[in-house]
Amino acid sequence: MNVTKREADKMQTVYLLSGPAGVGKSTTSQALARCLNNSAYVSGDYVSHMHVNGRQKPWESKLELSLIWNNILSLTRNFILNEIDVVVDYVTFPDEAYWLRDKLKDLTDNVVYTVLWVDPETLLKRDQLRLPEHQMGERCLILMEEFKQSGLKNNNLLDTSQKSPDDIQQVIEEIMNNKQYRLAD
Amino acid sequence: MNVTKREADKMQTVYLLSGPAGVGKSTTSQALARCLNNSAYVSGDYVSHMHVNGRQKPWESKLELSLIWNNILSLTRNFILNEIDVVVDYVTFPDEAYWLRDKLKDLTDNVVYTVLWVDPETLLKRDQLRLPEHQMGERCLILMEEFKQSGLKNNNLLDTSQKSPDDIQQVIEEIMNNKQYRLAD
Repeated sequence: MNVTKREADKMQTVYLLSGPAGVGKSTTSQALARCLNNSAYVSGDYVSHMHVNGRQKPWESKLELSLIWNNILSLTRNFILNEIDVVVDYVTFPDEAYWLRDKLKDLTDNVVYTVLWVDPETLLKRDQLRLPEHQMGERCLILMEEFKQSGLKNNNLLDTSQKSPDDIQQVIEEIMNNKQYRLAD
Repeated sequence: MNVTKREADKMQTVYLLSGPAGVGKSTTSQALARCLNNSAYVSGDYVSHMHVNGRQKPWESKLELSLIWNNILSLTRNFILNEIDVVVDYVTFPDEAYWLRDKLKDLTDNVVYTVLWVDPETLLKRDQLRLPEHQMGERCLILMEEFKQSGLKNNNLLDTSQKSPDDIQQVIEEIMNNKQYRLAD
């Protein structure tokens, strides 16, 4: 879609915050949503668990994953049509980010795709600080490996290894203002 | 839409569980979703609060209410297309129930609309058993009055004044099996 800068500025923005489990997606996404004037927060995990009985694990079932993404897409479209920016908090791989961007082309060009990253040691350390029932253990590392093999571009990565929870505002401003995370046409 | 019984049987069912605050909508809806083979649970309150900043109170803003219902509709359509029954847990008035039924006509004829009801004294007693921060007080009664003035038909009412929490299975079977709650064409 070919628009002038002025038109693009008026369009809503969709922020896809991704990354392996334990990297701080939910905290960062919720804080980002609270920083925007008119915003929605869409948790992919919550949307996924709306399917109660008969649910397959989305990493084992393409049908289940497709249902989740169609639900995220529908919600995102409705919010954009109401002039609301959307923050999607989910383990989103590049293929899924590009799919969503393409499905939103008639509504907006502004899709931001940021994959939060930390070095494996920091990730495991942070994981151990969680309540035992929330600890992911080795699965954190498996997801990291999947991201590495997903064709992810460096410019969509945001390494927070050196950041503390106090730096969250800085991380959010980076996501909002640094053009490197925007998915171009 | 004109279908034979066999076709209607194969269609997914959408259950709209409604009623004033404090009547047991969430508990009953979640239990109903767990009774169905392939089911989704859609909380209208959760969907409403996906809108973080800029959100208006839906009972004061037609635009906000319309956004919520469009989101519920989109999710419900996606679930039905995946052959999943849907339980919608929300304060749904008759006009909204008929609107949803009409918007789903191309997918299913099976829309069940049940408004849970208790006498005002029981409602206030149950409300006082809640944690103080969850108590609704007088607002329970205001919602009851709104339902009374909404053109609600008696056959969509399910009075649970005489039911205890142990009777929930019986209430669920009543909702699933008693045809009086189905919204006809």
